[in-house]
Order: sequence, then C-alpha cells, then structure tokens
Amino acid sequence: MNVIDLAQNVALQRNCLCVGLDPDPSRLPKHLNSSLHDIGQFLNEIIAATAPYCVAYKVNFAFFEGLGRDGWSLLYDIRKSLPSSHYLIADAKRGDIGHTGTQYARSIFGDLDFDAVTLNPYMGRDVVDPFLSYGNKSVILLALTSNQSSPEIQLKMMADNRPLFEHILHVGQSWGTHEQIQFVIGATQSPYLKHIRSIAPNNWLLIPGVGAQGGNLAEVMTSTMNDQIGILINSSRGILYKDSSIQFAESSADEARSIADEMKRQINRRNSPILQD
Amino acid sequence: MNVIDLAQNVALQRNCLCVGLDPDPSRLPKHLNSSLHDIGQFLNEIIAATAPYCVAYKVNFAFFEGLGRDGWSLLYDIRKSLPSSHYLIADAKRGDIGHTGTQYARSIFGDLDFDAVTLNPYMGRDVVDPFLSYGNKSVILLALTSNQSSPEIQLKMMADNRPLFEHILHVGQSWGTHEQIQFVIGATQSPYLKHIRSIAPNNWLLIPGVGAQGGNLAEVMTSTMNDQIGILINSSRGILYKDSSIQFAESSADEARSIADEMKRQINRRNSPILQD
Repeated sequence: MNVIDLAQNVALQRNCLCVGLDPDPSRLPKHLNSSLHDIGQFLNEIIAATAPYCVAYKVNFAFFEGLGRDGWSLLYDIRKSLPSSHYLIADAKRGDIGHTGTQYARSIFGDLDFDAVTLNPYMGRDVVDPFLSYGNKSVILLALTSNQSSPEIQLKMMADNRPLFEHILHVGQSWGTHEQIQFVIGATQSPYLKHIRSIAPNNWLLIPGVGAQGGNLAEVMTSTMNDQIGILINSSRGILYKDSSIQFAESSADEARSIADEMKRQINRRNSPILQD
Repeated sequence: MNVIDLAQNVALQRNCLCVGLDPDPSRLPKHLNSSLHDIGQFLNEIIAATAPYCVAYKVNFAFFEGLGRDGWSLLYDIRKSLPSSHYLIADAKRGDIGHTGTQYARSIFGDLDFDAVTLNPYMGRDVVDPFLSYGNKSVILLALTSNQSSPEIQLKMMADNRPLFEHILHVGQSWGTHEQIQFVIGATQSPYLKHIRSIAPNNWLLIPGVGAQGGNLAEVMTSTMNDQIGILINSSRGILYKDSSIQFAESSADEARSIADEMKRQINRRNSPILQD
C-alpha cells in the first residue's frame, strides 16, 4: 500500500491508529509460553483482533532479533500474516550507506515487502536512496524522538539558530517527495508539535509515545493533523499487554477500539476537505 | 575480548587490521553458488586464511539480513566460527531506546556475544545504556563517516561553531569510559583526522574506507594512532573479493598480509611506549 491509499483509508475510517508489534516473551498472556510457536500465536491473535480498529501495523525488528537465531524467521512468518488492507511499517531504524544500505533495502522492501521503514538520518541522504529505488514506498526519518536523552543531540542548537531536528526536517524533505519522506515525532514533544507541522506541512508523521509514554491523544492530534490528516499514531504495549488472561485478544481489541473512537471524534472535528469526498 | 586485550594484541603483533565480513552472493568465487551453505563455506575459508594477518573481524549485519529469512541463522553460525583470539565487532549500526534498545543489546551482546557494536548516536545516550549494561564490552558511535552525503548532517555547524560530529565526539565521551566508547571515523576524512584524535585522545577509532573507498593507509595511521595505537582499520571488499578463482582464500590472505606488513612499518615508526613492554 502506498501513502495515497493510506490517506484514503484514514479518511474513510476516521482512524489513524498504528498498532506496534513488540513481542516481549516476558509479557505474554499467562497460558502461553515463550516458544516461537506461542509468540507467533499471540501476535496472530492480536492482529486478527485489532485489524478492524487500526489502519497500520508497525513491526519492531528489535523484538524479533531479541528472540535469538530463529527470531528472524518468525519475523518473516508474521509479515505474511499482516493484512494487505493495512499500511505496514518496518520499525528497523536502519541507517547505512552504499552496498550495505542496498542490502538493508533488499531485505526490508524486497524480501519482506514492507510499505515503509524507519531510518536514522545521521549519515545523510545516502541512507535513503537505496530504499527509494523501490517505487511507491516511503522512508520515515527519525526527527524528534520521545526519549529522555533526545535533547542532547536533537535539540542542540545549530549555527543558524535552529535545533538539529529542524535541520533534519528541512534537509530530509529535499531527499524525496512528500509521499516518500515521512518523519518520526515523539508524542511527548508537545511544545514542538505545531511548529513541526508548519515546517513539514505535507509529510506524514509517525507519532509514538501516546499512552504508556505519556502523550495526550487529543492534544497531539489537534497539533499535527493536516488536510490529509497526515499522521499515524502508534500504540504498542498499551494495546498488546492490556490483559494477561486467555481473553487477551478481546481486551486488546477493546483498547484499540477505545483509541479509535477518540480518533474518530478528533478527525471529525477537523472537518478536512478529504473527509467530504 | 575487551579493549585492554585488544591493545595488547595490537602492540604485540604491530597490527591493527580488521577484516570486514560482507558476504555478497553476487561476488562469490566462481566455483561457489549463492546458497547459504556456499556462502558459509566462503566466509569460513576467508576467516581461516586471514586470521594470522588481522586482529579483529567486523560482521556486517546488513549482508546477512539481505540473504533472506535464513540469513540471520547463518549470522549465528559465522559468529561461532570466529576465533576468540580476535576482537569481534557487530557492524549493526543500531540505535534505539528503552525496551527496544534492550532487545538489540540482548541479541548482539547477549546471544551473539560480540565484543563491540556500531551504534548511531542520533537518539542520545539512551541508545548506549542497554549495551553498556553488559560489562567489558564497547560501543562504537558513528561520528564522521566516509560517505558522500555525510557533510549535510555531520559537518553542519552548531551554534558553538563546531560541526555536529565534534559535538558527538564530546558528548559521546561522557556516556562511558574510554574503554567503553569508541568512534567510527571514515578514512576519507583526512583533513579532520588529526583534529579528531586531539578531541578524543584516548578512545579507540574504527576506521573504514582505506583501499576501495580511497583512504591512504600510511597517512590515516600517522594521523590517528595514539600511545596505545588506538585504531582499527577495516578492509572488507578489498580483501574478500580479491580473487574469484578457487584460490580465493590464498589471495585474500596475501592481500591481508600486504596490509599487515605496511601496518607493522607504520606502528614501528610510531615508537609508542606500549611497544616496549
């Protein structure tokens, strides 16, 4: 799926929820064990239960790599389970160049056929090019993240009196079209959200950090939506680990539905032209 | 192996060569095919042939991920083949935070038990902490890389009149001891090498870009060695793909030996105290 189809889905469903798949063996429902089989079953049930209430999934590569030598194989299986009706994001935060970048792109956009990938911009445009050689796919550049230590780099002031993340927003937009280039913005960065949207008016923003990490959904949405809506808000642990009983999937679906309901209210208030179509 | 043992090996052998393992199926010797079995055989022969002429190996994760769903499994096999007499670097360029960073650290330092890992510093100290919770291991932060587009971010001037990579060198040193924190510096960045060494006098530098990417070995070494020698110079393609005949391993060994000979000359010229022990 490309971002044009994503925008249509978001408008049609009044929903911008991305469910993050972070399989943590220590947090599975009590009736499951930490075998790859059970982790796969857990994720498949979560996907089936939440699909009606979200428009995207974000697969966190670290949690699959953390499962050991066969974790990568489970990643391939889960990718096959993900519905093509949803926008599929590889949260890999890769960032490398030349022949090495080409291999990462082959893996994530070639073999695994994700629609978008999170990338780290520190090495510059060379990181993005191998991924953009796959048509109709997007890269999502880290810009201003939600973690405690992000200020010591990302908020550091540049000679032109802008913090570094603003430079990333500017230079990053020059690396591709606004359909190709998206940005990761932490929901906890509320003082900056409106300003970020003014600097990158047309790019999609992937926003983690609502819920568990403390960002307020209504405030975040009001500050960042554009006429296309233009945002995906990610929730991982808040949905995945809502309930450790055998009813876990139902509870995850309830949690996703509750976020989706609030999203619908916020999107309807926005009254964007795209909602009239 | 920790950096203290690494320093002893480097001094004893007058050698600072790191062989980079970037298995590219399209560049294998002609008698091998692109099956995982043959790629494994290729790497094992390269390792056996080059071990006498280098002190470190750098495993490039991208090239294993690029091999598809079983590439990760080959990575585990190759890790087992690597000799404990050498310093073993995971070239993964990861960079993530909190629970996610913990999973990457578990994979690379826990399961795979590498001695060091390349990391991207853009998200700040939070990226480093999960890795440093494993004792006696090091992180190698991207600082100034050898690629064409590195200037648009890394050389961007900050408000204090230093380019961004200098800020990374400064703040990065505050994240751990000089045994724990190392930096990636591209060999092609010759105008900056002496200055970088003056800013980070005691940290190990991992220097790719000699040979194929154009850096001059003698010049790079003269500019960056400290009293501990304190550098690893990586060569990947120049050694791995020297010869596509059935004699490939011998040719790779010859190439590694030739670099090692030049390194010995440069290290002996340096006349460091550590060489007198």
